[in-house]
Amino acid sequence: MKKLVIVGAGFAGLRLARHLKNQALEIWLIDKNNYHQFQPLFYQVATSGLEPSAISFPLRKVFQKQKNIFIRCAEVSLIDTGAQHIHTSIGNLAYDYLVIATGAGTNFFGNAPIESNAMPMKSVSEALYLRNTILQNLEQALVVPEPQKAALLNVVVVGGGPTGVEVSGALAEMKKHILPKDYPELDFSKMNITLVEAAARTLAAMSEESSAASKRYLEKLGVTVLTNTQVTNYEGHVVHLSNGAQLATRNVIWAAGVKGNWLAGLPETAQARGNRIAVNRFNQVNGFTNVFAIGDIAYMSTPKYANAHPQVATVANEQADVLAKNLKRLLNGETIQQEFEYSNKGSMATVGRHLAVVDLPFLKFRGLLAWLFWMFLHLMLILGVKNKILVFINWMWKYFTFDQSLRLIIKPYHKKKI
Amino acid sequence: MKKLVIVGAGFAGLRLARHLKNQALEIWLIDKNNYHQFQPLFYQVATSGLEPSAISFPLRKVFQKQKNIFIRCAEVSLIDTGAQHIHTSIGNLAYDYLVIATGAGTNFFGNAPIESNAMPMKSVSEALYLRNTILQNLEQALVVPEPQKAALLNVVVVGGGPTGVEVSGALAEMKKHILPKDYPELDFSKMNITLVEAAARTLAAMSEESSAASKRYLEKLGVTVLTNTQVTNYEGHVVHLSNGAQLATRNVIWAAGVKGNWLAGLPETAQARGNRIAVNRFNQVNGFTNVFAIGDIAYMSTPKYANAHPQVATVANEQADVLAKNLKRLLNGETIQQEFEYSNKGSMATVGRHLAVVDLPFLKFRGLLAWLFWMFLHLMLILGVKNKILVFINWMWKYFTFDQSLRLIIKPYHKKKI
Repeated sequence: MKKLVIVGAGFAGLRLARHLKNQALEIWLIDKNNYHQFQPLFYQVATSGLEPSAISFPLRKVFQKQKNIFIRCAEVSLIDTGAQHIHTSIGNLAYDYLVIATGAGTNFFGNAPIESNAMPMKSVSEALYLRNTILQNLEQALVVPEPQKAALLNVVVVGGGPTGVEVSGALAEMKKHILPKDYPELDFSKMNITLVEAAARTLAAMSEESSAASKRYLEKLGVTVLTNTQVTNYEGHVVHLSNGAQLATRNVIWAAGVKGNWLAGLPETAQARGNRIAVNRFNQVNGFTNVFAIGDIAYMSTPKYANAHPQVATVANEQADVLAKNLKRLLNGETIQQEFEYSNKGSMATVGRHLAVVDLPFLKFRGLLAWLFWMFLHLMLILGVKNKILVFINWMWKYFTFDQSLRLIIKPYHKKKI
Repeated sequence: MKKLVIVGAGFAGLRLARHLKNQALEIWLIDKNNYHQFQPLFYQVATSGLEPSAISFPLRKVFQKQKNIFIRCAEVSLIDTGAQHIHTSIGNLAYDYLVIATGAGTNFFGNAPIESNAMPMKSVSEALYLRNTILQNLEQALVVPEPQKAALLNVVVVGGGPTGVEVSGALAEMKKHILPKDYPELDFSKMNITLVEAAARTLAAMSEESSAASKRYLEKLGVTVLTNTQVTNYEGHVVHLSNGAQLATRNVIWAAGVKGNWLAGLPETAQARGNRIAVNRFNQVNGFTNVFAIGDIAYMSTPKYANAHPQVATVANEQADVLAKNLKRLLNGETIQQEFEYSNKGSMATVGRHLAVVDLPFLKFRGLLAWLFWMFLHLMLILGVKNKILVFINWMWKYFTFDQSLRLIIKPYHKKKI
């Protein structure tokens, strides 16, 4: 039986494996984690709105009893296209077909102090770390002298894309509805939430109307929105801005950029902008016929998208769909046929209660209806009936009580060798 | 206003604070964590049945908007009864009344190799660590040669009290209903779950009928129950038993004993058996009138319980109730009056689906009815409506699907200083 190795169980990798699970094919699905993560809701984990488990789904549950699918938790260290195998933390693995679906990680643009001190939000572990840090800093604010309190309360979010906008809005609602009740000793009028965006507008990839609405919503919730502004440095206490201003804060959330999770061993000729892997219209990596890249990591130029597709879940899903069809043809001894083109079904973002923006190809809307639409769609997209139920209950609970009840600082336990 | 300092927000400490929250009293509630933990269900967190958040409750939520209650996350390092203050990780804190409710931790009886290698289960963090370890060892079993597989699958539970019995039963159900589906590559007929108990019977504190039934239930589920047997050593690979036998396992759960979480600075004259604090019938620590100990840490001799009360939640709750009344009298300038005596309302344990045992003062029952009763009572006892709902949904889901869907190895994220 032919061996297909898929590296990464995000939207692209997992969907591909599901499409192919009943083929006469030995599928090896490799991921660092034993679960699939629903990235669009990381910000709700970070802001005490959802538990990690509500947006994570065990990979083994997806493929229960499937004898031809082998799931391995491992880190991939090298691709050896000559020998047709990959090197991993649990040994080498041979392949006939290799699909790279490693996604994208946080891009600190080479700024080491920022990388050391700002908090990324590209995994549930990172989102939990963020939650713990914000809550711990609130506890800390109770026990330090007055002049040190503000920096512990202030939050600076860097990057005005959907992640930055959504986390800013959620924090602003937390500041308004929950924190003053939880910490009657602290004065939250001194807590500033600032969103810093290098471009001229937030949600720059969306329509101008949605973009303008998102800024209006954020400001309504009390977020200070700074556009055309860059963060030049942050060493743990003060954010330095390109306009010369300084913001004292111990909480910096970095949502300003991503870069592809490149794998060692791939030829330089396959490297594209943003650390992505250059692929043709069949998602074949430049120079190979049996090595593919899909999702955020893939860089494909098409007539409609000369500078590659946006790094979003819908592209990943559609690429997985097309590649599945093409691989089935290859398995049947036919040639690859279907070229990929992204059919943009729109985009959306939520800022807060009743406040969201939706851009569909032929319709833009915002406010309450957009917010309901956003919730409905995300509920549909989350894997697993139980997860859908849990997320729904959490959302309803929050809606009626104005409460996010997961304000737990659960510290990891380590075995001490004595 | 008089200052009351309560150390520990377990059953005893939290309940006392709630009783006194509307008194003319400044209450300082000190705990390592910012949440209350529902200990009776730790074993379900460890076995992927519940999320930590379902059985943890943010302390600040309990006392929202309460201006006279000061919650602090801190470790207490010393009690200075002379100066009437305590030393903590966030500074000194003066008191008029001090209540010690630090509970009990795991007792390894001085065996350092066991302490280094066996896993305790006395906090949600420890329960999560246990879950991660068991799941990681299953993943590891996939990639090691055949002779090494069994030790990664086997589990040895040490201690046949309620915790040991309940975790053994839950693991046995996981082995039966879930693991073979999740890991079709592994042969679970080679997985042994062994419960080791030093006394002559499991659940030795319960009636003989319940005790016998628990053993029968465990064996029905496939657990090997070894009574009159002690673990003499474990260095990470092989459990050595007092009968000379050896069990190869990488998963040892230690539920064999507890010891009081003693605080430095208390006089030796206050030390009682099991590292507990000797108190009189008013829970006053020996030699003091304004220092109290309640719950698992308190050692009180009474006519009915000459060798102290069992270290269970019901005693903690009742002591908090009585102490609250006595403190209210003190605050009103009256003398302490009510002596404590435990009114034992019974005990219970669950082994698995439809399998539980209940001993009430005038009634013993087991099986399906006991199991339903156990679930109902635990649901009632969990703090918070939302937690009750979440636990209930998880239980119903598990009941109908035979599935525990939280098989996630969520690794802590640490900021790397670069």
